[in-house]
Amino acid sequence: MAIVLGPNRYGKAETRLVRVVRDGESHRLADLNVSVALAGDLAATHLTGDNSGVLPTDTMKNTVYAFAKKHGVGEPEEFGLRLARHFVTSRAQVHSARVSIESHGWDRLGPHSFQRQGSHTRTATVTVTAEAEQVVSGITGLVLLNSTASEFHGFPRDDYTTLTGTTDRILATAVDARWRHALPAGDWATSYAGAVEALTGAFVDTYSYSLQQTLYAMGSRVLSARPEVAEIRLVLPNKHHYLVDLSPFGLANDNEVFIAGDRPYGLIEGTVTRDDAPAASAEWYL
Amino acid sequence: MAIVLGPNRYGKAETRLVRVVRDGESHRLADLNVSVALAGDLAATHLTGDNSGVLPTDTMKNTVYAFAKKHGVGEPEEFGLRLARHFVTSRAQVHSARVSIESHGWDRLGPHSFQRQGSHTRTATVTVTAEAEQVVSGITGLVLLNSTASEFHGFPRDDYTTLTGTTDRILATAVDARWRHALPAGDWATSYAGAVEALTGAFVDTYSYSLQQTLYAMGSRVLSARPEVAEIRLVLPNKHHYLVDLSPFGLANDNEVFIAGDRPYGLIEGTVTRDDAPAASAEWYL
Amino acid sequence: MAIVLGPNRYGKAETRLVRVVRDGESHRLADLNVSVALAGDLAATHLTGDNSGVLPTDTMKNTVYAFAKKHGVGEPEEFGLRLARHFVTSRAQVHSARVSIESHGWDRLGPHSFQRQGSHTRTATVTVTAEAEQVVSGITGLVLLNSTASEFHGFPRDDYTTLTGTTDRILATAVDARWRHALPAGDWATSYAGAVEALTGAFVDTYSYSLQQTLYAMGSRVLSARPEVAEIRLVLPNKHHYLVDLSPFGLANDNEVFIAGDRPYGLIEGTVTRDDAPAASAEWYL
Amino acid sequence: MAIVLGPNRYGKAETRLVRVVRDGESHRLADLNVSVALAGDLAATHLTGDNSGVLPTDTMKNTVYAFAKKHGVGEPEEFGLRLARHFVTSRAQVHSARVSIESHGWDRLGPHSFQRQGSHTRTATVTVTAEAEQVVSGITGLVLLNSTASEFHGFPRDDYTTLTGTTDRILATAVDARWRHALPAGDWATSYAGAVEALTGAFVDTYSYSLQQTLYAMGSRVLSARPEVAEIRLVLPNKHHYLVDLSPFGLANDNEVFIAGDRPYGLIEGTVTRDDAPAASAEWYL
Repeated sequence: MAIVLGPNRYGKAETRLVRVVRDGESHRLADLNVSVALAGDLAATHLTGDNSGVLPTDTMKNTVYAFAKKHGVGEPEEFGLRLARHFVTSRAQVHSARVSIESHGWDRLGPHSFQRQGSHTRTATVTVTAEAEQVVSGITGLVLLNSTASEFHGFPRDDYTTLTGTTDRILATAVDARWRHALPAGDWATSYAGAVEALTGAFVDTYSYSLQQTLYAMGSRVLSARPEVAEIRLVLPNKHHYLVDLSPFGLANDNEVFIAGDRPYGLIEGTVTRDDAPAASAEWYL
Repeated sequence: MAIVLGPNRYGKAETRLVRVVRDGESHRLADLNVSVALAGDLAATHLTGDNSGVLPTDTMKNTVYAFAKKHGVGEPEEFGLRLARHFVTSRAQVHSARVSIESHGWDRLGPHSFQRQGSHTRTATVTVTAEAEQVVSGITGLVLLNSTASEFHGFPRDDYTTLTGTTDRILATAVDARWRHALPAGDWATSYAGAVEALTGAFVDTYSYSLQQTLYAMGSRVLSARPEVAEIRLVLPNKHHYLVDLSPFGLANDNEVFIAGDRPYGLIEGTVTRDDAPAASAEWYL
Repeated sequence: MAIVLGPNRYGKAETRLVRVVRDGESHRLADLNVSVALAGDLAATHLTGDNSGVLPTDTMKNTVYAFAKKHGVGEPEEFGLRLARHFVTSRAQVHSARVSIESHGWDRLGPHSFQRQGSHTRTATVTVTAEAEQVVSGITGLVLLNSTASEFHGFPRDDYTTLTGTTDRILATAVDARWRHALPAGDWATSYAGAVEALTGAFVDTYSYSLQQTLYAMGSRVLSARPEVAEIRLVLPNKHHYLVDLSPFGLANDNEVFIAGDRPYGLIEGTVTRDDAPAASAEWYL
Repeated sequence: MAIVLGPNRYGKAETRLVRVVRDGESHRLADLNVSVALAGDLAATHLTGDNSGVLPTDTMKNTVYAFAKKHGVGEPEEFGLRLARHFVTSRAQVHSARVSIESHGWDRLGPHSFQRQGSHTRTATVTVTAEAEQVVSGITGLVLLNSTASEFHGFPRDDYTTLTGTTDRILATAVDARWRHALPAGDWATSYAGAVEALTGAFVDTYSYSLQQTLYAMGSRVLSARPEVAEIRLVLPNKHHYLVDLSPFGLANDNEVFIAGDRPYGLIEGTVTRDDAPAASAEWYL
């Protein structure tokens, strides 16, 4: 038996970039958090501290800023592809580059004035090797709530089941979704807007008997609406709202007064895919 | 010398309430985080553990939920006043009640469907005694940015000064503001909307030579626009955006590429008031 | 009626400093988060953007680092006093300087190796004017729990009270304490260690009928043990542990299985003081 | 082309359990955060909302509390195995159960008094199917620092490299490690303590030319010391400490005064394994 090095990668995480475009009367703004991870021929530094193949993570940070100036940022998927391709093509030891981007939205208040949205974050994760390029778009922190049109009953019971079914409950979640594109090219802005509209629309439209049903409806709506998306992963916490028992105070509570719980919460995770989806070239969700 | 009990209070913090109003075709939603603190004749429990004057904090929580049903929530100032008055008038030992509320906004997606805003939080802090009622409204987490129209120079220098002045920088902050009303009554919704519009408008309109100048402009705009506001406290972090030196890469950087810094940050705090403002009846900002 | 500038201050918050002392075989480490706030003659910058009296916050940051080299750090109270005195004495416009420090502890693993403690944070807040120097020491995030020896009953009941009294409960809190020293000089390390020992010891030793009683015992123990402390403020969340009802599963629960709740929580705040304590020269707790 | 359901699972996340053992003069305490995720025959609820196979997540929560009473908690690996086996063996639709546990440590202050450690969190993730049982132990949030004995140089340079090499720097990280056991049985407490000692010892002992080298030393030390461990994954942020340039103030800085940076940070991830390690039966790190 010998001890050996297994899978590994390294990079610079959370490089915070704000890029202002000042080419017209109105400024435009990109506000990104960029993480780079490289894999390849990295045994020497692990085994002996020989860094001759270790491009500094500081250089990755510099590259993010320099590319933002030279090429602009554009859509996060586009910026990620440009960066990832650069690392793989410019350095022989780098076999794989993954660039993960969080993009924060801002609303315009004036020609050079903005208000941060805060309601959710757009994400893009690009993985490039010599053989394949994979683009995954996503959204995180999108909190949605239906105050009715949600039931949950008909479930099995065991010795530890005390829950009673309900035909009217609040259904609330914080959408965390990643969708894998079939091709590493496209109209990223339109695709993203369409996917988010599909997610939100399906949440609103679905009369729900379980959060799983809503999850599947959201995923399949995205695949129906966006032919460029090969598959989608959804992670949906069931943000429980507990009906308050007001009977000690002589009050009825017809689904009007709720405790918003923190922990524990349900957690529903699922992939919706096409039966002819091309295989993923890299892990694309966790 | 004797050891004695000084100022004290107690209560239930962060009672999470979601109130659904279902009286029409479209539901309405209030999403509050309510904290109650009572002061008064509380020496016995501190000194001997005699709890005969200690209304349980669990009861305060119950009262929040019961009042949400009986009276509805309405504006957070209104709900806070109703709760605070209840505790002071119903219990002789309670000399002062402070109710602090965070109100989370939701955008409508459908008759019973909502998306959480996340861009900022509305606050209200009500303090009631037998003699006085004080209402303080506020906002927290409102992130604003001007990508130009901000200078900073003309400052004094000492042995530890290395900063060079600038005639063009990003000015960004996360507004944390509290404003004290002259009277414990009013059209809270209109007042709040007007105050936020004034804050935002002044930030956008001010060509700024210092964040202090912007702070004063924001505060005085609120007082000008809202006669019901006696004074306003603003706490404005200067969220530094550092210009990246791209010269090693042969690139200019004409205020286009910035590092968004986390720590340290400037912190500017100031009150803007009326010279005839009535005195505050309780501490109203920290 | 005129709109005027009220109380204000500004400074640099959260300057992160790690100071290594390398003068012996074993290195020593100070890990601080330093915030500086200055007040004084600052009307011009607010009203007109004239910065001739505004020492840059960047200079405050530089001063923190330069002083850490020139003078060393020592105890946080000492470092805070040195910084605060510097700003007040070196600049005529500065009438008051407040330096707030968080100090993170590290355990030694070797001559130059350390493990961060994480169990709590030591704090010091120093406020200096031409007339007075005030030193406040403190601790935050110290989580303590008694698994018995805590009762709560004998409380009044109103229409919204459903709580039943208990003669055996978990009592848990996260201690947030600030204590004001009578003089701006002392053996800060010994004083801090003694105060923390008193706080912890009183929590352990007190058979508690209310968290208020425990609070007062903790505060008075500190004053008894440390004559240099004039008064102490304690903010103690009551971190509720709810007994799980296991009867549906045919199981008893004799105070063995608990839900650790997040929100809401009780919040008990109180000052313990000496009847001859000198007056505070600046606000010292919030 | 058809849209189909892909991999999915669901469960109850973050059930907070505090278990007191009161069987002797001194109480003992277990403080866990337990997450359960089940996978299996779950298509119906996704496609039609038929919940006949969906054991409620509320039942999972109840099971955690009931098992804590009936069987005690013991080591987190043991508790996780008992729970995961229960779900797989008691319900035909459940093909796989994953139980993830965070265990918070407390130091004893008295027979029934405790202080929370806060310095790191112990983890255990157990995955059970009909065919295999996999146990992964771990630690998160263990912050270590060497104030010297760390170099970084000899790296390649490209057009975006500005970093200069160093022969003396601070090396600091927050250890996030998961190690997979060869067998689902063992002396978990001894194994955990030994693994943590190996991680910490290797960090202290390694004269480091790169964080990768330190990572490999830490991983191989664990495998050498603990034969029951098949492989280990380490995720190590490089928590940068930047040397402050004090030359403008006429001061030298011989590695004494540092800025502790927040973002960006290096991120080094790697697996150290045995060449004869049995294959993992489920994903075991992310």
